[in-house]
Amino acid sequence: MKIALFDDNRLGIVMGDGIVDVSELVQWNPESPQASLVSLMSQYEQWRPAIERALANATSIPLQQVTLRAPVPNPSKIVAAPVNYYLHQDEMNAQFNNAEFTVEKLGFFLKAPSSIIGPNEAVLLPYRDRRFDHEAELAFVVGKRAKDVRYEDAADYIFGYFALMDMTMRGKEDRPMRKSFDTFTPIGPWIVTKDEVEDPNRLAFTLWVNEDVRQQANTQDLIYDCYKFFEMASHVMTLEPGDIVTTGTPEGVGPVQPGDTVRIQIERIGGFSVSVDYRPGV
Amino acid sequence: MKIALFDDNRLGIVMGDGIVDVSELVQWNPESPQASLVSLMSQYEQWRPAIERALANATSIPLQQVTLRAPVPNPSKIVAAPVNYYLHQDEMNAQFNNAEFTVEKLGFFLKAPSSIIGPNEAVLLPYRDRRFDHEAELAFVVGKRAKDVRYEDAADYIFGYFALMDMTMRGKEDRPMRKSFDTFTPIGPWIVTKDEVEDPNRLAFTLWVNEDVRQQANTQDLIYDCYKFFEMASHVMTLEPGDIVTTGTPEGVGPVQPGDTVRIQIERIGGFSVSVDYRPGV
Repeated sequence: MKIALFDDNRLGIVMGDGIVDVSELVQWNPESPQASLVSLMSQYEQWRPAIERALANATSIPLQQVTLRAPVPNPSKIVAAPVNYYLHQDEMNAQFNNAEFTVEKLGFFLKAPSSIIGPNEAVLLPYRDRRFDHEAELAFVVGKRAKDVRYEDAADYIFGYFALMDMTMRGKEDRPMRKSFDTFTPIGPWIVTKDEVEDPNRLAFTLWVNEDVRQQANTQDLIYDCYKFFEMASHVMTLEPGDIVTTGTPEGVGPVQPGDTVRIQIERIGGFSVSVDYRPGV
Repeated sequence: MKIALFDDNRLGIVMGDGIVDVSELVQWNPESPQASLVSLMSQYEQWRPAIERALANATSIPLQQVTLRAPVPNPSKIVAAPVNYYLHQDEMNAQFNNAEFTVEKLGFFLKAPSSIIGPNEAVLLPYRDRRFDHEAELAFVVGKRAKDVRYEDAADYIFGYFALMDMTMRGKEDRPMRKSFDTFTPIGPWIVTKDEVEDPNRLAFTLWVNEDVRQQANTQDLIYDCYKFFEMASHVMTLEPGDIVTTGTPEGVGPVQPGDTVRIQIERIGGFSVSVDYRPGV
């Protein structure tokens, strides 16, 4: 099922080119979308037959007539993998002469939840004299509280998957700062529940800047795959329902400029695009 | 005013050695302590006369009869200063041969909110073969939403101050991981509203491990003082009411061991102590 937030944070199920509003059906509160999502996830299996029955008879709204919102609007954490593809490690070392470690040594970092924006919004660059890069990533939302979860159990704790752009300022600052500017975490276009994803560790994905393919990769090349990264993070800390985990970016990262349109597309998930501009006043 | 959470997250005002339960008076909901705190802060000036009148006639409970809880239980972020005292920079460089930068270059990092514990709880070490250090810090809670706040306006956005221990695993992992283990952010003993603090950039503080003084410093030696650090963080991202900002630790950091008791005391704020143990099963 493709679970979307739209317009004033109503809950919709995406079917083809349309979306069905199921807010009333599942007692969704648009004023507390994050709490409503956590509640929905905790009761998803109970709700699911009723949702499916409703979808069979529902009139859908064309997707072009609604505005999709960030499907996980306000997690208690965004847990992110620093260098989780070897070819990305190579390009970082070549460009910045860093001798960067990978996720195996670095573990994870955190991004501020306040950096989240929805699909089709604008990434706003805060400075004219710094480099800002796109980073395409597969992300997922935690379905239930998780602590010390083993690799083989990780899938049980994941509710669904979506696409994430980890926008990044290059430089010497700590990662959480370089990656937490407001608007630096576009997510979307919706959550695809895990039953529709089959194997999250074998998904092709692509990122374009305007018409140019910049990143093209497959999650089968992750150093720590989704479940291994989840296991490691859940060993350090309690992951709460609604938390976002994002798996890291492959090779091909590069700068964006005001006026650019950045598009991401992930197999079985879908895609979205954002525009790039300067912040007002910059 | 000293604003404390106690027992099952009720709201109390600390007066001398006692605490007055004002939960009913301000419509505090112990089941949503973070939301209740945000609500209280937003209406604090309106509530304040009624609270003061109530305190004049109230019977207080001896502090020894209650259990103090983390006064900011679930912020949307914990924003932390990496190296914000020059003498701490010196000791890090001497011990780890790192040529560490300071806050001026590093900016900030984030800690997971799930790492928060209350005063008098236990810090639980996850490994036997790694070094874990105490870091004593002055922290504050954001009173209202803040973005692009100037130095001279920062005090308006700060609600109050408290003590924080930024427990840290040494090593090459990214700071958010080394500092986000569950139990690695003890805070307390209560929030002291800013009117009682006068100048947060001139507060003496001390940390003991058992009977030994390990850290003794004054916030006047901060590289980025409270307001400057706030200004910088609020330029990057929107700070939400209830977010925690912690200002960094001075020289004297060192390892803790199971069985240790770590105590922090800050001038005008107060203090608390936590025990150190291994996690069950380690």
